[in-house]
Amino acid sequence: MLKIGVVGYGYWGPNIVRNFNALDDSEVAFVCDQNPEVLKKVSKLYPNIECLTSCEEALASNSIDALAIVTPVSTHYPLAKKALEQGKHVFVEKPFTVTTAQADELCNLAERKNLVIMVDHTFLFTGAVRKIKDIVDKDELGSVLYYDSTRVNLGLFQHDVNVVWDLAPHDFSIMNYVLKDKPTGIVATGKAHVGEFENIAYITVYFDNNLIAHFAVNWLSPVKVRNTLIGGERKMLVWNDVDPDEKIKIYDKGIDVTSKEGIYKLLVSYRSGDMYAPRVDPMEALKLEANYFVDCVEKSEKPFNSGIEGMQVVQMLEACNESIKAGGKVVKLD
Amino acid sequence: MLKIGVVGYGYWGPNIVRNFNALDDSEVAFVCDQNPEVLKKVSKLYPNIECLTSCEEALASNSIDALAIVTPVSTHYPLAKKALEQGKHVFVEKPFTVTTAQADELCNLAERKNLVIMVDHTFLFTGAVRKIKDIVDKDELGSVLYYDSTRVNLGLFQHDVNVVWDLAPHDFSIMNYVLKDKPTGIVATGKAHVGEFENIAYITVYFDNNLIAHFAVNWLSPVKVRNTLIGGERKMLVWNDVDPDEKIKIYDKGIDVTSKEGIYKLLVSYRSGDMYAPRVDPMEALKLEANYFVDCVEKSEKPFNSGIEGMQVVQMLEACNESIKAGGKVVKLD
Amino acid sequence: MLKIGVVGYGYWGPNIVRNFNALDDSEVAFVCDQNPEVLKKVSKLYPNIECLTSCEEALASNSIDALAIVTPVSTHYPLAKKALEQGKHVFVEKPFTVTTAQADELCNLAERKNLVIMVDHTFLFTGAVRKIKDIVDKDELGSVLYYDSTRVNLGLFQHDVNVVWDLAPHDFSIMNYVLKDKPTGIVATGKAHVGEFENIAYITVYFDNNLIAHFAVNWLSPVKVRNTLIGGERKMLVWNDVDPDEKIKIYDKGIDVTSKEGIYKLLVSYRSGDMYAPRVDPMEALKLEANYFVDCVEKSEKPFNSGIEGMQVVQMLEACNESIKAGGKVVKLD
Amino acid sequence: MLKIGVVGYGYWGPNIVRNFNALDDSEVAFVCDQNPEVLKKVSKLYPNIECLTSCEEALASNSIDALAIVTPVSTHYPLAKKALEQGKHVFVEKPFTVTTAQADELCNLAERKNLVIMVDHTFLFTGAVRKIKDIVDKDELGSVLYYDSTRVNLGLFQHDVNVVWDLAPHDFSIMNYVLKDKPTGIVATGKAHVGEFENIAYITVYFDNNLIAHFAVNWLSPVKVRNTLIGGERKMLVWNDVDPDEKIKIYDKGIDVTSKEGIYKLLVSYRSGDMYAPRVDPMEALKLEANYFVDCVEKSEKPFNSGIEGMQVVQMLEACNESIKAGGKVVKLD
Repeated sequence: MLKIGVVGYGYWGPNIVRNFNALDDSEVAFVCDQNPEVLKKVSKLYPNIECLTSCEEALASNSIDALAIVTPVSTHYPLAKKALEQGKHVFVEKPFTVTTAQADELCNLAERKNLVIMVDHTFLFTGAVRKIKDIVDKDELGSVLYYDSTRVNLGLFQHDVNVVWDLAPHDFSIMNYVLKDKPTGIVATGKAHVGEFENIAYITVYFDNNLIAHFAVNWLSPVKVRNTLIGGERKMLVWNDVDPDEKIKIYDKGIDVTSKEGIYKLLVSYRSGDMYAPRVDPMEALKLEANYFVDCVEKSEKPFNSGIEGMQVVQMLEACNESIKAGGKVVKLD
Repeated sequence: MLKIGVVGYGYWGPNIVRNFNALDDSEVAFVCDQNPEVLKKVSKLYPNIECLTSCEEALASNSIDALAIVTPVSTHYPLAKKALEQGKHVFVEKPFTVTTAQADELCNLAERKNLVIMVDHTFLFTGAVRKIKDIVDKDELGSVLYYDSTRVNLGLFQHDVNVVWDLAPHDFSIMNYVLKDKPTGIVATGKAHVGEFENIAYITVYFDNNLIAHFAVNWLSPVKVRNTLIGGERKMLVWNDVDPDEKIKIYDKGIDVTSKEGIYKLLVSYRSGDMYAPRVDPMEALKLEANYFVDCVEKSEKPFNSGIEGMQVVQMLEACNESIKAGGKVVKLD
Repeated sequence: MLKIGVVGYGYWGPNIVRNFNALDDSEVAFVCDQNPEVLKKVSKLYPNIECLTSCEEALASNSIDALAIVTPVSTHYPLAKKALEQGKHVFVEKPFTVTTAQADELCNLAERKNLVIMVDHTFLFTGAVRKIKDIVDKDELGSVLYYDSTRVNLGLFQHDVNVVWDLAPHDFSIMNYVLKDKPTGIVATGKAHVGEFENIAYITVYFDNNLIAHFAVNWLSPVKVRNTLIGGERKMLVWNDVDPDEKIKIYDKGIDVTSKEGIYKLLVSYRSGDMYAPRVDPMEALKLEANYFVDCVEKSEKPFNSGIEGMQVVQMLEACNESIKAGGKVVKLD
Repeated sequence: MLKIGVVGYGYWGPNIVRNFNALDDSEVAFVCDQNPEVLKKVSKLYPNIECLTSCEEALASNSIDALAIVTPVSTHYPLAKKALEQGKHVFVEKPFTVTTAQADELCNLAERKNLVIMVDHTFLFTGAVRKIKDIVDKDELGSVLYYDSTRVNLGLFQHDVNVVWDLAPHDFSIMNYVLKDKPTGIVATGKAHVGEFENIAYITVYFDNNLIAHFAVNWLSPVKVRNTLIGGERKMLVWNDVDPDEKIKIYDKGIDVTSKEGIYKLLVSYRSGDMYAPRVDPMEALKLEANYFVDCVEKSEKPFNSGIEGMQVVQMLEACNESIKAGGKVVKLD
């Protein structure tokens, strides 16, 4: 029975507590939050879970095997560092850390102490993303030419990060998971209409090969859009996550290039065949992820959404901020 | 009765001929095309229209008052120049010219000779764009914060220009028409998957004020999207041009910022009211535009889609190409 | 504090218990179900609620003021009768009873004993239905000409009633609530593809005036449709309950009849104006209804969804069955 | 070269003339219409086609092999009869005739004189209906359980027939073509809100087997719906004719009935798999049909949309009217 402490009981914390507490092989030992009001709710719902208001106390606790960190991103690094130093496994909210350097340090620390870090990229456990990875892995789309994602709605303005750090971690982690290619450069543009943090941004990601990716994120859209296009040489995929029934559609559409002898002789013909929408398993993503964390800890396995993968996302987010500040220059990734 | 010669009878030419020929106050005197096959179609449909295969002959003709140029963009400048020199008014396909310098020269020439140049930005004559301009002009949206356009589908690969020059002229001309703000900088990224011309591109446009604009264009999308969001301080507008019934929706949605004393005290509250979809006049855009050209010529008036406006679009297209070539740097516009 | 007993903890029972238990002015005293397994769940979630397996015990209990009956429809009458006889108020699932005679007897009994009967037509408490009633009451649509409802999906086959008794009570209760007209006749057709109960049915309802209503219900549809059209002389309304954002749309569309001097002189002209989608309050319908029940009991008021209204729905359901059995004849309602 | 005369140049006539005139193997010899204004248009567009204002003259003409009758339905019988008597083949608008008796007489006459009658059920030549027939013929859906069609919009009020005679011929002819089952009874209800002809109607069609069909037709709907569901034991098909891209969707959804030992032991389990949307050929239906008529005449073949099939539709329309007049009784078909 894995014993887990949870720090932070804000928007997402309740889901973390509910899921880890419901698993057969784990239980939540305590919940720590600075706000006594929210702890009252915890006591009511879970009389057996201890409530703490001091982080120090939480970190000093010997009653747990792992710490789930569900606090603002700026606190991830100090909390995770202390937890790892005290031999606790760490489950941490996305984005992993504020800087790549912090992420790197935590990864090394976990490596040395043989501890698990899992970054909570919940989307990787949805039926839709699993199905998309399947399709790409089976090479159904052929060589992927572009990845185009739009994630916009009338969103909650964050007080400590911009819209890129709020929304793009989802899409960066999904793309990194689904495709095998490694980003090499980023160009980002954006605007802060309220306060100092950008509420709208556009990000282009380059790769060493033919692939190009683009991400639109926006907190000020009147309509909710969760749309991803993956264009392959053979087929093309559209993932509309707000469609209740047909989230994924695969189009047998594309072009056939029959000659390449110079620009005026290039013969492009169009192909337009059937479309199909595979059934998507309505799995509970966070439940699967919580279970996977417990498994990884028990088997001492490195998860596929470990600190390394979390760091790759942070590196992309850092590059976005640098590019936006410069008005849109290319920032290299290594 | 305005007599018009038409050069070029490819994809769009037949529509130009049909419309100018149907007007009460204009008639098509000749159609010129290098391909004798397409001229056969002209003869069949319009026995009274002369058919020419030589541009020189067309340009030398004294039978016309105006020349409609519906040829590839690289020929616009030489054809328009000759026509203006011979005292003909010019109706020219978008994009106006290959360079801003060419456009500038043509505008000056027309000015000197008191001739009309009209650039065929047909969308400005649709009921949808007219309605959007109305709404923005009446300040229904409040101060505009962003303009976000997506124009993608499995499109015809062009042999002489990239997807930006093919599709973005529509959106640039619409934005310039609808908003009063003048673009000051452009960042563009893109990729050529087939041949040398980009088939996918993303463009951010900056302004001196709070406004930001973005354009996604793509020839390799399995689905057709014609979507524009205009986010205002008061209301937000969505224009979905592929919706047969409700092309324009105005959302009484947004945020109210009640305090600005430092970032942590910023209070953002959400507003979500009714939506309405105004009736859009199903006018025939090209018919209206053809009629407007004849009017402008007869009254010696400068059209709102004159060479100047066409040149502004060309300047933006040039900046896109420069930015794409540099991998995404900011290119200033003046 | 109104004390409520709940009989039946199947599909809907848990929602009834949760809502009545959460109100400030009511609490659930006991839950009664024949299945000890489901009672375990009750004990776990609500340690303070008594669990009973015998209906006799439940009905004999003196600890309650009201009984909520959430059992199969055939048991509604005997349970409600006993409860009323013992002076308990009754909250009963739809459809109210198996026969109009049963419903009538219960209404009379409640009347005599001054007790409240409320039939759980939850939809009447949704934001959408409230908004529609508002619109109709304000005569925005003008005189209503037709009411057309489709409620189909791959639905749970019931073992004791046909699809009409399962799905149509929603629509009959909504129509009766929204419109003031009284049905005078019913023609219904249907088919039982599996077992003896119809899984697909079509119902026409006549009125004394110009109004006609139609209902399509189907357990074997691959797609979920919840669509209602209300056509008025002035405007027309479409309610699409599966649309997350724009459930209700009001169209300024219709016809103007300018002359009625004989059929060949009838001049019908079409009107097509704006559409608007009013904001719909995302209220929790069952919470509102539970609260309303407690209010009605406390103030000794007859609810607008009392036994009388429940009986009107049962009368329509009876007529449907009679018409279906006859292959589609008109069954008069009085 | 088949020479065709066309009587009637109203709404549909121009399409008939254009198509028959464009075929390699047929030409339009004359167009006859009582209105001289519309004949002016004919002269302008087709200088070589003779224009007649008198039906007698048209029928007496020796210059034609076949007569296309595109006039109001009440004139179909006398015109077709005369034409057949004079040895002309007949292409006639839907619905074929006003009564089954008329249709029968014409069929017999054509049979005797070895002439072709084709009833213009254009939908049978669309890519969508062809694809649906393919799918059903290949038994992809399994045994068909229901056929459910909705055809509504703000439609043109007809002055001589009700909405059933205007719209249902499309759906009756499609269903009869796609399914092999023969209708045995009809129940129809409807209402005339303007004038004497019903503008809204609902039709149930019975068969000897498990199948049930239903048709909703309405001239007073604010939205255009062209939707057909075909529910099979194995799969289910949805045809949405207003969807530009994915008109037909086939759902691998349904139920599995694993036991039939009495109603309470009936085990119904749900199946929900992939969906696919086959590519639909964007053929020009009327062109194909015109070509098919010429073929049938040349080869002396009976078309699959002959007078017999047209008569079956008329019989169903007659039954609808009889049922509507009786308020909704079952009318037997033989």
